[in-house]
Amino acid sequence: MASTKGIAAGLVKNIMKYIVEGGGFDRLLEKVSIVSAGEGRCLAEMVVEDKHLNRGGSMHGGFTALLVDTITTVALMTDGKGVPGVSVNMNINYLKPAFPGEEILIDAKTKRVGKTMAFLDVDVKKKVSGDLIATGSHVKFIG
Amino acid sequence: MASTKGIAAGLVKNIMKYIVEGGGFDRLLEKVSIVSAGEGRCLAEMVVEDKHLNRGGSMHGGFTALLVDTITTVALMTDGKGVPGVSVNMNINYLKPAFPGEEILIDAKTKRVGKTMAFLDVDVKKKVSGDLIATGSHVKFIG
Amino acid sequence: MASTKGIAAGLVKNIMKYIVEGGGFDRLLEKVSIVSAGEGRCLAEMVVEDKHLNRGGSMHGGFTALLVDTITTVALMTDGKGVPGVSVNMNINYLKPAFPGEEILIDAKTKRVGKTMAFLDVDVKKKVSGDLIATGSHVKFIG
Amino acid sequence: MASTKGIAAGLVKNIMKYIVEGGGFDRLLEKVSIVSAGEGRCLAEMVVEDKHLNRGGSMHGGFTALLVDTITTVALMTDGKGVPGVSVNMNINYLKPAFPGEEILIDAKTKRVGKTMAFLDVDVKKKVSGDLIATGSHVKFIG
Repeated sequence: MASTKGIAAGLVKNIMKYIVEGGGFDRLLEKVSIVSAGEGRCLAEMVVEDKHLNRGGSMHGGFTALLVDTITTVALMTDGKGVPGVSVNMNINYLKPAFPGEEILIDAKTKRVGKTMAFLDVDVKKKVSGDLIATGSHVKFIG
Repeated sequence: MASTKGIAAGLVKNIMKYIVEGGGFDRLLEKVSIVSAGEGRCLAEMVVEDKHLNRGGSMHGGFTALLVDTITTVALMTDGKGVPGVSVNMNINYLKPAFPGEEILIDAKTKRVGKTMAFLDVDVKKKVSGDLIATGSHVKFIG
Repeated sequence: MASTKGIAAGLVKNIMKYIVEGGGFDRLLEKVSIVSAGEGRCLAEMVVEDKHLNRGGSMHGGFTALLVDTITTVALMTDGKGVPGVSVNMNINYLKPAFPGEEILIDAKTKRVGKTMAFLDVDVKKKVSGDLIATGSHVKFIG
Repeated sequence: MASTKGIAAGLVKNIMKYIVEGGGFDRLLEKVSIVSAGEGRCLAEMVVEDKHLNRGGSMHGGFTALLVDTITTVALMTDGKGVPGVSVNMNINYLKPAFPGEEILIDAKTKRVGKTMAFLDVDVKKKVSGDLIATGSHVKFIG
């Protein structure tokens, strides 16, 4: 479950640890585990908890956005250039709610890394059923 | 600075208090103040702190997304129907970084409330210079 | 090249013919061929011509948007409900330019069809190299 | 009605004429008139005709996307740098249908022009009622 592909597993674990332990907003991802990463891709997992919810009792769309932002950035960092880039655009579609106790997967892929722009896509889904919770794209400037 | 328009100031303050004190992900907005609200609009403000940052030292794009999500939802709740709705799509453009200590404004407007869909726009900007940090839109299902 | 899966080939050809021959804006897709379609998916192809270009000499982003809009709608119509729906949001990322004479593929997939909302994704790519020209998502109301 | 601000009226008319008469996809905007333009802004108008419709009888979302793409680009060209840029992301929300015979306004504004990226917003609305048909954003690379 904790294997990584493409680049050394330890390296990606370290990237995630570095991000989460900085004391900034990414501290809220402390429960996210990297399942595999490398060659522009990053698959992560976590269990939805009460602290991730909106007032309606399902996973907060703002938390989903944090997952999209950070896990796509980790995916980008496993690509050749190894840079995090700067966000230009993030777009998220919300397909289905997720509830406390549910295991979810965050599957981020680099679609293109050009000279100045990088394009990433992500699916957030339920681990057991495979049902999509959200799909998103993230455009970053890396020039 | 703390006046509200359209609906009673106290009511909007209460909505925000209710959202933030629920113990869910919106607890991270505890430093956000409502400047004015009513008739489908909500203007809020806060000061960027270390805990809102990414590893690059500027306000995290995921935190911006949380602001966009929640403040547009408060704006929607001041509209006639008074419902929070369910997120369908959120799109955010990142124009300029914000840094610790900077005062920022989050200005959310309802563009349309139909029978089943609501459309909201938001500008996130620096209070002193007026420079845009981010612009975004949020589509919610309210049927 | 002209086989369809999931529903009868002739039916999808007829849908496309019906759309293009209506005299509306879809007449501009007269050179698009359906490669395969069914079960919420539609794969189409065409060759870029001068009339599809912007002033810079590459395929116009507005034409790409037309491809995204219409081919995702055909994909949706091959799903169980068979309805075209009404557009709520369309988001497109532009990854690489396409030039006159290039064969391109438009690959649209239904990600979810709920009671009231449908979510579709699309890749527009070069047939020979597989390079992505654009990726997009389309949210439609089908209630 | 045909006055322009910021830069010479004749110049913007010429830009639009240059774009439309190139024989490319922008030829489909031949009925669009520039109302005013300059300082990063462009206001245009047109009357919806049968050839702009989808099969449902309202203005085609792909045509709306063409309006968004091109009119924001003209707005950008009236800004200081005078360059059209290259599309990176386009996002459109569809609020209300428009019907044949209706006069519509396309109001595009430059939100930021940085060293490498430009951000534009647009409202498409009904001239008589002011009702919004669509709102959109367009991110362009201008480096």
